[in-house]
Amino acid sequence: MNIQSYMLQVGQDARAASRKIASADTRVKSTALKAIGQALLDNRAGLLAANKLDLEAAAANGLAQPLVDRLVLGDKGIQQMVAGVLEVESLGDPVGEISEMRYMPSGIRVGRMRVPLGVIGIIYESRPNVTVDAASLCLKAGNACILRGGSEAFHSNTAIALCIRKGLLEAGLPETVVQVIDTTDRAAVGALLKLEDYVDVLIPRGGRGLIERVSQESKIPVIKHLDGICHLYIDEGADTEMAINIAVNSKAEKYAVCNALETLLVAESMADKVLPELDDRFSQLGVELRGCERTLEFMPAATAASDEDWAAEYLGPVLSVRVVQDLDVAIDHIARYGSQHTDCIVSNNHANTQRFLTEVDSASVLVNVSTQFADGFEYGLGAEIGISTDKIHARGPVGLEGMTSQKFIVLGQGEIRIR
Amino acid sequence: MNIQSYMLQVGQDARAASRKIASADTRVKSTALKAIGQALLDNRAGLLAANKLDLEAAAANGLAQPLVDRLVLGDKGIQQMVAGVLEVESLGDPVGEISEMRYMPSGIRVGRMRVPLGVIGIIYESRPNVTVDAASLCLKAGNACILRGGSEAFHSNTAIALCIRKGLLEAGLPETVVQVIDTTDRAAVGALLKLEDYVDVLIPRGGRGLIERVSQESKIPVIKHLDGICHLYIDEGADTEMAINIAVNSKAEKYAVCNALETLLVAESMADKVLPELDDRFSQLGVELRGCERTLEFMPAATAASDEDWAAEYLGPVLSVRVVQDLDVAIDHIARYGSQHTDCIVSNNHANTQRFLTEVDSASVLVNVSTQFADGFEYGLGAEIGISTDKIHARGPVGLEGMTSQKFIVLGQGEIRIR
Repeated sequence: MNIQSYMLQVGQDARAASRKIASADTRVKSTALKAIGQALLDNRAGLLAANKLDLEAAAANGLAQPLVDRLVLGDKGIQQMVAGVLEVESLGDPVGEISEMRYMPSGIRVGRMRVPLGVIGIIYESRPNVTVDAASLCLKAGNACILRGGSEAFHSNTAIALCIRKGLLEAGLPETVVQVIDTTDRAAVGALLKLEDYVDVLIPRGGRGLIERVSQESKIPVIKHLDGICHLYIDEGADTEMAINIAVNSKAEKYAVCNALETLLVAESMADKVLPELDDRFSQLGVELRGCERTLEFMPAATAASDEDWAAEYLGPVLSVRVVQDLDVAIDHIARYGSQHTDCIVSNNHANTQRFLTEVDSASVLVNVSTQFADGFEYGLGAEIGISTDKIHARGPVGLEGMTSQKFIVLGQGEIRIR
Repeated sequence: MNIQSYMLQVGQDARAASRKIASADTRVKSTALKAIGQALLDNRAGLLAANKLDLEAAAANGLAQPLVDRLVLGDKGIQQMVAGVLEVESLGDPVGEISEMRYMPSGIRVGRMRVPLGVIGIIYESRPNVTVDAASLCLKAGNACILRGGSEAFHSNTAIALCIRKGLLEAGLPETVVQVIDTTDRAAVGALLKLEDYVDVLIPRGGRGLIERVSQESKIPVIKHLDGICHLYIDEGADTEMAINIAVNSKAEKYAVCNALETLLVAESMADKVLPELDDRFSQLGVELRGCERTLEFMPAATAASDEDWAAEYLGPVLSVRVVQDLDVAIDHIARYGSQHTDCIVSNNHANTQRFLTEVDSASVLVNVSTQFADGFEYGLGAEIGISTDKIHARGPVGLEGMTSQKFIVLGQGEIRIR
C-alpha cells in the first residue's frame, strides 16, 4: 500500500472512531486510560527493548546529545508516562457540559453543549512520552487522534502504541481511536496535511519550520505555538526585592522553556534600585546580559544590545535589558517585539496593573508573579497539549477544554418561526 | 500607489488602530456607534445618490434581478442600517469580562479575560448594508476591521464608509478602525489574504468558491460558513401534528436561507401518519418532493430521489424525504450527508432526544422546534456576523462573543516557581 492510500485509510478510520469516542461515557474513557497505564507497566521489557533500538540508531546516526537525552525512556520514564495517564484519568470530563441554557422570547430554550473537536492530528518530535500524553488528552476530551512522532523515536512510539491499543480494546473502544503513524516515510506528514475531510484540527509541536509548513500547506485549522519572547516590566514604585526575585526566577529557574523571560524592561526610576543587584545575581548564575545604553550604566557585566536582541527568543542563559521611560513605552515595546505568549508587570500601582492587564495582548498576562508559572499544570488545567499563541479558539496553555468546542442546543415544544 | 503597497498600508493601519479600539471603553464605542447612525441619517441624499450609481451600473452590466434587488438601498434600507447600528450599540460589551478567577495551590490567582481578536478581514458580496452591520459588530467587540465588499456595491459602500469614518472621528477614535477597501481592483482580495502579519482572522461571506479560495491561499485563520444541509428526523411516537407543522415551517417559512430544511427523515412507524398529509401540504406550497422508495408509497406527489439529492443544499422549494428504520439510521444518515450546520429531531422519547443531542455533531442540534430558528437573533446573540460550520473557535451563529477570545490573567504577590 502506498503512503497516500495508507494515510487516507488512517483518516477514514479516525473519522469513524471519532464518532464512537465522542459519545463514549466518562467511565469507559476512564477504563481505557487505566488499562493503558497498566499495559505500559506490563510491557516494561518490550518498551525498554524498543527504546534501546532507538538509542542505538541515534548513536549510529550521531544524533546530538540533547536529542538523545530526550529520547531516553528508562524505568523512570515509564513511570512518568503511567502517572501522566492516571493524572488525565482523574481530571473532570469536559464533554457534554451544558451551559447558558436560557428561555428566549419565542419560547425556545437555547444553550451550549461542550463537544469534542472530532479528529486531532498531532505532529511532534523526539520525546516518546508525548505519544502517551497526547493520546490520553485526546481520548479524555472525546477526540480520535492521529499521532506522527519523530522518526528517531519510531521504535519506542510503536511499542507505546501497542500498549495504547491494548487499553482501548480492553475498554471496548475501537483501537483506531488513537493511531500512531506506522512508518518513518516523510511523505506521511505531507499526506496528513491534506486530510482536510478527516482531520478537524492540527497541532504541530516542533520548530518554526514545521509550524510554518503546516500553516502553509494545509487547509486544516491549526492550533500552534510560535515563539515565547516573554517580557517582565518593573514599574515605578514596585517592591524592589519582589521585582528582583521575580526577574531572576523568570529567567533562570529553567532556561529552555517557552515561558522563560527573554527581555527585562525597567522603569527609569527603578533602574538604580534593581539593575545593580540583578547584575550581580545574573552574573553569578552565568547569565549573559545585553542592555540598552542606559542599562550599561547600571549593569557593568552587560554588553550593548543590538536591535535583533529585542526580537530574540534565546531559550538559554542570555537576557536583554532595556530601561524605559514609563508604562506606555513598556507596552509599546511589548507590542512591537513580543510574541503574544507571556508578559508580566511587577507593580504596586493599581491603575498601571489594570492598564497592563488590558492593553498587553498576550495569551498570558501576569501581575507580580514569575513568568515560569505560565503552563497548564500551574493554571489548574491538569495537563496541556501545548501552549497556543493563536488569537482564535484557545490562547495560552491548551488543556482538555481547548480540545473541545461548544455547539448550540435548542429545546422546544413545537415552536415554529413566523417572520 | 500599487495595490500591494495600498493593502500593506491598510493592514498596518488596521493593526495600529486595533490597539486603540481594543482598550476603548464601552462609552466611547457607544458614542461612535450612535454617531455612525446619525451620520447615515444626515447623509441620506448622498447615500441614495451613490446607490443610484451602483444601480445604473448594474443595469448597464445586465446584473441578474435577484442581485439587483439585494443592491437597492432606499429610505427603508437606510433606516434598517441605522436600526442595526443602534441594536448593536444596545448589546452588552463582551470585552474585559473576567471569569473563572481562582486561587491555585501555588498561591497565584488564575482567570480569563475576554479580549478582542484584533484585526478582522471580511470579504462579502452585493448587499451594502453588510458594510454597516460588519463594522458595528467588529467595533463593539473591540476589533479593527478591513471590509472588502462586492464591486457592484462599490459606490454605496464608499458612501457608507464616509458615514462610518465620521462617526469614529466624532468619538475620538482613529478612522482606520474600520477600513473599506477603496478600489474595485480584484487583486485587493489576493493581497488581503497575504496580510497574515496584520490580520488575525478572515470571515469570507459568499459562495463556496470564495471560501475555498480563502482557505487555500491564506495562512490566516478563517471563520467560515459552508453548506447548510439541514435535516429533520421524525422519531417513532412523535406528536403527529407537531411533526408536520415543524417540517412545513422548517422547509417553507423561507427557502433561500441556510437553516431551511433540505432532507426529511421519517421513522418507519411514522411514515403513514405524517407523509400523506405532508404530501398535501407541500404540494399546495409548490414544494417539489424527492423521496426514497418507501417514501413514494406514502407521497404520491414525490418522484424518486437520487444519491445526489441526499447531499444537496437546494436553497429552494425542493425537499428530499427518506423513510429510515430507526434513530440509528437517522443519525448515520446525518453524519454521512449532513453539513454539520443545523439538524432537528421531533420526538417525545427522552432517551432518543438525549442521544440525538449528543451524537449529532452539528453547530445547532434542535429538539421539537423549527430549523428556521437557527440564527443569532433567535439565539439571543443580538446580531451575527455569520454562521460558522467550523469545529474550532465558534460553532453556529457568531455574535459579539465569537468575535472575541479569552486570554489568561494571573495575579500574584511575588510568587516564584521552584520545580
